[in-house]
Amino acid sequence: MLSNILLLSLQISLLGTTLGGNILIWPMEGSHWLNVKIIIDELIKKEHNVTVLVASGALFITPSSYPSLTFEIYKVSFGKERVERVIKDFVLTWLENRPSPSTIWRFYQEMAKVIKDFHMVSREICDGVLKNEMLMEKLKKGKFEVLVSDPVFPCGDIVALKLGIPFIYSLRFSPASNVEKHCGKVPYPPSYVPAILSELTDQMTFADRVRNFISYHLQDYMFETLWKPWDSYYSKALGKPTTLCETMSKAEIWLIRTYWDFEFPRPFLPNFEFVGGLHCKPAKPLPKVLWRYKGKKPAMLGPNTQLFDWIPQNDLLGHPKTKAFITHGGTNGIYEAIYHGIPMVGVPMFADQPDNIAHMKAKGAAVEVNMNTMTSADLLNALRIVINDPSYKENAMRLSRIHHDQPVKPLDRAVFWIEFVMRHKGAKHLRVAAHDLSWFQYHSLDVIGFLLGCVASVVFLVTKCCLFSYQKFIRKGKRIKKE
Amino acid sequence: MLSNILLLSLQISLLGTTLGGNILIWPMEGSHWLNVKIIIDELIKKEHNVTVLVASGALFITPSSYPSLTFEIYKVSFGKERVERVIKDFVLTWLENRPSPSTIWRFYQEMAKVIKDFHMVSREICDGVLKNEMLMEKLKKGKFEVLVSDPVFPCGDIVALKLGIPFIYSLRFSPASNVEKHCGKVPYPPSYVPAILSELTDQMTFADRVRNFISYHLQDYMFETLWKPWDSYYSKALGKPTTLCETMSKAEIWLIRTYWDFEFPRPFLPNFEFVGGLHCKPAKPLPKVLWRYKGKKPAMLGPNTQLFDWIPQNDLLGHPKTKAFITHGGTNGIYEAIYHGIPMVGVPMFADQPDNIAHMKAKGAAVEVNMNTMTSADLLNALRIVINDPSYKENAMRLSRIHHDQPVKPLDRAVFWIEFVMRHKGAKHLRVAAHDLSWFQYHSLDVIGFLLGCVASVVFLVTKCCLFSYQKFIRKGKRIKKE
Repeated sequence: MLSNILLLSLQISLLGTTLGGNILIWPMEGSHWLNVKIIIDELIKKEHNVTVLVASGALFITPSSYPSLTFEIYKVSFGKERVERVIKDFVLTWLENRPSPSTIWRFYQEMAKVIKDFHMVSREICDGVLKNEMLMEKLKKGKFEVLVSDPVFPCGDIVALKLGIPFIYSLRFSPASNVEKHCGKVPYPPSYVPAILSELTDQMTFADRVRNFISYHLQDYMFETLWKPWDSYYSKALGKPTTLCETMSKAEIWLIRTYWDFEFPRPFLPNFEFVGGLHCKPAKPLPKVLWRYKGKKPAMLGPNTQLFDWIPQNDLLGHPKTKAFITHGGTNGIYEAIYHGIPMVGVPMFADQPDNIAHMKAKGAAVEVNMNTMTSADLLNALRIVINDPSYKENAMRLSRIHHDQPVKPLDRAVFWIEFVMRHKGAKHLRVAAHDLSWFQYHSLDVIGFLLGCVASVVFLVTKCCLFSYQKFIRKGKRIKKE
Repeated sequence: MLSNILLLSLQISLLGTTLGGNILIWPMEGSHWLNVKIIIDELIKKEHNVTVLVASGALFITPSSYPSLTFEIYKVSFGKERVERVIKDFVLTWLENRPSPSTIWRFYQEMAKVIKDFHMVSREICDGVLKNEMLMEKLKKGKFEVLVSDPVFPCGDIVALKLGIPFIYSLRFSPASNVEKHCGKVPYPPSYVPAILSELTDQMTFADRVRNFISYHLQDYMFETLWKPWDSYYSKALGKPTTLCETMSKAEIWLIRTYWDFEFPRPFLPNFEFVGGLHCKPAKPLPKVLWRYKGKKPAMLGPNTQLFDWIPQNDLLGHPKTKAFITHGGTNGIYEAIYHGIPMVGVPMFADQPDNIAHMKAKGAAVEVNMNTMTSADLLNALRIVINDPSYKENAMRLSRIHHDQPVKPLDRAVFWIEFVMRHKGAKHLRVAAHDLSWFQYHSLDVIGFLLGCVASVVFLVTKCCLFSYQKFIRKGKRIKKE
């Protein structure tokens, strides 16, 4: 047993010896940054040199807060307020037009406006790097071995290709899963893989499956129209006719921020690695039960509720007396609850949050409360259910056991594959040949067309022959009759 | 760095502490047994109690050769000679009818006879266990926690279900990949995933793709007709209407005996684990170069060639002076060559061997020689190519580096997932919901039909309305004209 462990640790230590590599990080915002920051910390621990590209107007990445990181700051014309406004518009549009089967079209129309705004900021970020010749020259001299990006924030891939280095994506999902599906070539059978934002599960009725099928095509159409302008940007930046999708398809590894404790099982490809919950860690001791609240203290607050401006959420969730977690349903928070086996009351707001809560509900570890219509009684009732019905705690603990029982921890796997790409200058052996096919070749439509053509020709020829023989026979018969 | 290694090894050691479990092995023959034997040895090292079911007429599993294993021997009416004859017929039929596009139909007809013979032996093995009430009673009392089987040898799954325990498959592939595809629900896009036995790669011309498409459907048809009789056997054994496929779909984990150093990348599902090369290990020192040969020594043998009845193939391949490996192309042997980075000359004979060599050729690590037509000059020429053209050694070394650079070794992963199923009494969280759908639901045919129906209805109604309005308008016009 001991020799076995030693062998394993020796193997891992040998595999983990890509010391002193240079890694470039494409800027992200919000929870995307919080998640990738954990990976960066681990890479630094392993003695890599990590450089983070950051726009002067970035909201979440504040270089002064991270003294141990190297930043490459570049000028953009917008300020923090602009990013903040885009995020605010995004949240508000979602809250005011929460998608439902009847309002879906209006929701997409409203979202289109916000997405266009987001793309304008993204484009300025791209220009800020790509058109900054001095910065690009400096990056070229930086001898980077890999770039880590997120397909939600475009252009990281362009920078990697211009520097001639491989790139890796870290993502929860891309808009409409289009980057994974169409660019990454992952099969998404609409019969049992729910479309993102649909709040459906893998157990669908016929009506659900119709809705799911339509959702896929509607989202494909949205992506096609809203992301289309990037194609010409990408072509111009790379100096050859290409598309956003073709460029993004070149990602060596896709680090997905979920795992099968959270996801409904579905097909994937060898270069996809599910590293959900990589930020989770054991809890440190807490002094007492807490409540985080930023703002004016409500007058009717009971004496058993305390307000704090900031609390260590992970430590709180890991406290033995924590009975339930009221959450907006962000992936990071949900993973902390899974890690510690805490049942949830979900009050989802926007983006993947309603979907995330739908997952936890389906797995029996959460109850949902509608933010727009809930009363204090609703919230209390939901809390009582997850605390008093033992099945919620049992299911949360089951997910927790699945999460903890992996051959290698998510964070170690994420770092392993980044280092793998550095050691081997890519991971082409994991790239499916589907990338070399057009969409009709991929679906074998040319083959099916050809075979149908063959069958039709044979049927036509046989019919013609039969008709010909028949007519000849009839004519011969008539002639004999005449004679 | 050190603390990191210690943490990882601690994690793995903690995960690996399912001590003293009871594991049942369903009997296999040939290289299937040799491969699973490696897993069994590792399970015993980890202090599990492993019991191997074995028929009195088994060829490869000779209980006396494995004094450290517990065997449960049951009587069958056939002897070793019968199994040997089936295997011999299998090989000879293959050699005499090697499948090619022009002879494929005859090949399948000849193979059908051998397969029927193989199924008769398989059925006797099944009866030997299932109809032996005393043995079944003893197994029930054995408190087994998991059964390991191979879908090529049916009925292991029935025994597991009858004992009420989960089961795991270990396989290279099933006949026509049907068990993985139709029972396991793995997508196999015919546009870039070559059908087994087709000797195609993932780089296919239009003609290749037509051939591949036809191969899939031909093999599906073969499986449907030849394996169909098992459905009634399975229904009778389980006392309810079921099919072979439905029963096999219940496998918790599928341990596939390949990895991406060997396979062309393709989609798979969360309960599939690629553990190819799990039997490989570092070489022990050898005294000199060797040659294995069983039979009469040819008179013209040169003084630099030696004959031995048995040689340690792995140690030979790991010897620093080994330049090339002449192989029949079995998966086990190919993996030993990959492990040690040795280029190959392939002389494939039957089953997956031509496919395996096609894989190695496509990856630039092998040259193929046709067994039926080769001369000594052909073999010499092939050997010269793989030894003198450095690309073959480079490619073999590249595959070797990929093989060795995994977060956890294949054997450890195989054992991990067996123990996982024991710890959690299954792995249902990895099972796709596709299993609950019929084939037309799975392909969304009902949804597409419904939506087409909706579109047709709308078109019909709109046309009717237009026609009605038009006629009314015309009539009104005529009336006005008349007036």
